[in-house]
Amino acid sequence: MADKTIRTPKGFLFSTAEAAIKKPGRKDMALIFSTAEAAMAGVFTLNAVKAAPVKLDMRRIRSGRGRAIVANSGNANACTGRQGDADASEMTKTVAGALKTKPAGVYGCSTGVIGHALPMTRIRPALRTLCENLGKASAVDAAHAIMTTDLIPKAVSAGIRIENKTGTILGIAKGAGMICPRMATMLCFILTDIAIAPRTLDRCLRASAAKSFNRLTVDGDMSTNDTVLMMANGLLGNKPLTEKSEFLMPFQKKLDEVAYELARLVALDGEGASRLVEIAVSGARNGQDAEKAAFAVANSNLVKTAVYGNDANWGRIMAALGYSGAFMREEKTDIYIGRVRVASGGLNTSKDREASRELKSKHVKIRVNLNVGKASANVLTCDLTEEYIKINASYRS
Amino acid sequence: MADKTIRTPKGFLFSTAEAAIKKPGRKDMALIFSTAEAAMAGVFTLNAVKAAPVKLDMRRIRSGRGRAIVANSGNANACTGRQGDADASEMTKTVAGALKTKPAGVYGCSTGVIGHALPMTRIRPALRTLCENLGKASAVDAAHAIMTTDLIPKAVSAGIRIENKTGTILGIAKGAGMICPRMATMLCFILTDIAIAPRTLDRCLRASAAKSFNRLTVDGDMSTNDTVLMMANGLLGNKPLTEKSEFLMPFQKKLDEVAYELARLVALDGEGASRLVEIAVSGARNGQDAEKAAFAVANSNLVKTAVYGNDANWGRIMAALGYSGAFMREEKTDIYIGRVRVASGGLNTSKDREASRELKSKHVKIRVNLNVGKASANVLTCDLTEEYIKINASYRS
Repeated sequence: MADKTIRTPKGFLFSTAEAAIKKPGRKDMALIFSTAEAAMAGVFTLNAVKAAPVKLDMRRIRSGRGRAIVANSGNANACTGRQGDADASEMTKTVAGALKTKPAGVYGCSTGVIGHALPMTRIRPALRTLCENLGKASAVDAAHAIMTTDLIPKAVSAGIRIENKTGTILGIAKGAGMICPRMATMLCFILTDIAIAPRTLDRCLRASAAKSFNRLTVDGDMSTNDTVLMMANGLLGNKPLTEKSEFLMPFQKKLDEVAYELARLVALDGEGASRLVEIAVSGARNGQDAEKAAFAVANSNLVKTAVYGNDANWGRIMAALGYSGAFMREEKTDIYIGRVRVASGGLNTSKDREASRELKSKHVKIRVNLNVGKASANVLTCDLTEEYIKINASYRS
Repeated sequence: MADKTIRTPKGFLFSTAEAAIKKPGRKDMALIFSTAEAAMAGVFTLNAVKAAPVKLDMRRIRSGRGRAIVANSGNANACTGRQGDADASEMTKTVAGALKTKPAGVYGCSTGVIGHALPMTRIRPALRTLCENLGKASAVDAAHAIMTTDLIPKAVSAGIRIENKTGTILGIAKGAGMICPRMATMLCFILTDIAIAPRTLDRCLRASAAKSFNRLTVDGDMSTNDTVLMMANGLLGNKPLTEKSEFLMPFQKKLDEVAYELARLVALDGEGASRLVEIAVSGARNGQDAEKAAFAVANSNLVKTAVYGNDANWGRIMAALGYSGAFMREEKTDIYIGRVRVASGGLNTSKDREASRELKSKHVKIRVNLNVGKASANVLTCDLTEEYIKINASYRS
């Protein structure tokens, strides 16, 4: 399981700075630096509209190597054309110059409002501050600096024994709206001191993302900026993990845990959310059907508002399953809210009151058994509240 | 254009009754009866989970003929198994017996909560009242009786000159949540005294629905009960319209107008809606792409909350276009809010203030030109407000 207190892997330094990108009064830039060159892997948004830093990182990640990540909140640097490309490039070049490393090893990430040029006049001095102050901030401070509408900073760490030494995996992430599946749904940086071959790292990160960030939805809106970057600097001194290492399985398992826990924290802190909702579909004809069914339920505004209202209105779940495109038969479908079976073979079990009590839990689990096959899929989401509307009606003001 | 006051076509009688299905205090059942046998056509939900009356009507509509429609609000009679099938059948049989017509010519429609058996002990006496009181209610009274969370009854009529006589097309509909495309998205009954061959009627209705009810979304949730039924009793005395009639084109045009106006009324009265929002996508590579793009924007919670907040946050529109699956190039895309171009070739035009003013209109038009082809599609929707959450968090209480 994940640590109770956040541990930092060897050789990673952090700093934060205030560039007053959206408004003054908080640190809105972060820098992560590895004292040794790291193997790197990344997962990026599948949106056809990609932010300038995403396009830059997608080119650089091909090397499988890197030293630093510079990130800002408050402005996504998306839909900003050539100026946006130039700004993203300048950010990473400035950092590379100050840290005496190659620009190709510096990755940039932005999150915030779309369609406005970065305020480079305020960002330039902040970049200098970031480089000068390296090591003066913690991972949690960095998690704070990349927040937008998030209410809590998200950081998770876990230890793992390799060759009688303890390696560390640390992840930080931001949510909290425009969160939808089929990509890495947010900004997330995962750092480890464990040595691992770049190709193996890439495979491990993709496997973890498929079961965590890509099984997450807050509002069904896929962002232009979603990025998960992972750095492995090898300072633990272990023999680099490859596909054949005996330690690869335990490493993958820990990475899965860290990624899933971060995804859980993002769902829990979804814009306006009052509950974390886990949709678990089983008995589907195949994996694709299970995923379709789980996402249809997770993205249904009607299901999400019913959870918010403590209303065990399973008819909305059935309707969502019905339009999901997954093969299903109404008369075979069982639905559970928490421990209570609310529909059995497609019919009401008249357990509304008991189920309504289950909905009052901070973590709600909705289980569906389609009973037409053996495939299953889980999706994380949250409820839909008036607060989501308030946040997003006034996001830019 | 549609009439200012609602006209009723010849030979159609209406009645309403109170069965206190969800709660007492309002008429919640309606009966529509044609004094002459009518040609009938129907369009039904594509949801794999279909309500009992939908399954019944889908079988009966194959005859292309009918005399009556009996409808209730407050309970959808969906996910109710064999009991539901028996209840739907009994409703139509009871009406057929009292009106001395064949059960096969009586169509049933239900709307409301899913997963609960109809309260037949209260519905049976109401069915008798309906049959006894035929002719004592107006079409608007019937529109009232089928409302659920709708705030206004929806009725539209239009006249059309055929062979020197004036025929009438009348439509009534209910919305207002669980409204999403790819089927007839609600209960809607369209009545006319114009004579028309059943096959031609079916083709005309499908053509109208494709451009109206199937281009409509309130919340992206497809219902189990959506039904559009059309009756043409021929009492105008014209030579029945067929594919070759000179009057078919004007008839189709009027039917299109009535259907579109009803769809507009449903969007305008969408749950919690404060604005009607029309999304018009042009310049798409093909029709399917245009539809995908328009629906992605129309179903985006973030776009809908931005409209509610008068925030011309076109970045959210661009992000939705980007994940829609439609072929697009960010740098070719133009976006207009009302008359104001907010993005040109993918870039900000800095017209936020002017665009924000356009958003304050009761009818907001968002136009997108993808500039990669010649296809276009329009979709109707509404904004997303706190009121939607309130309505749906407490729908069953």
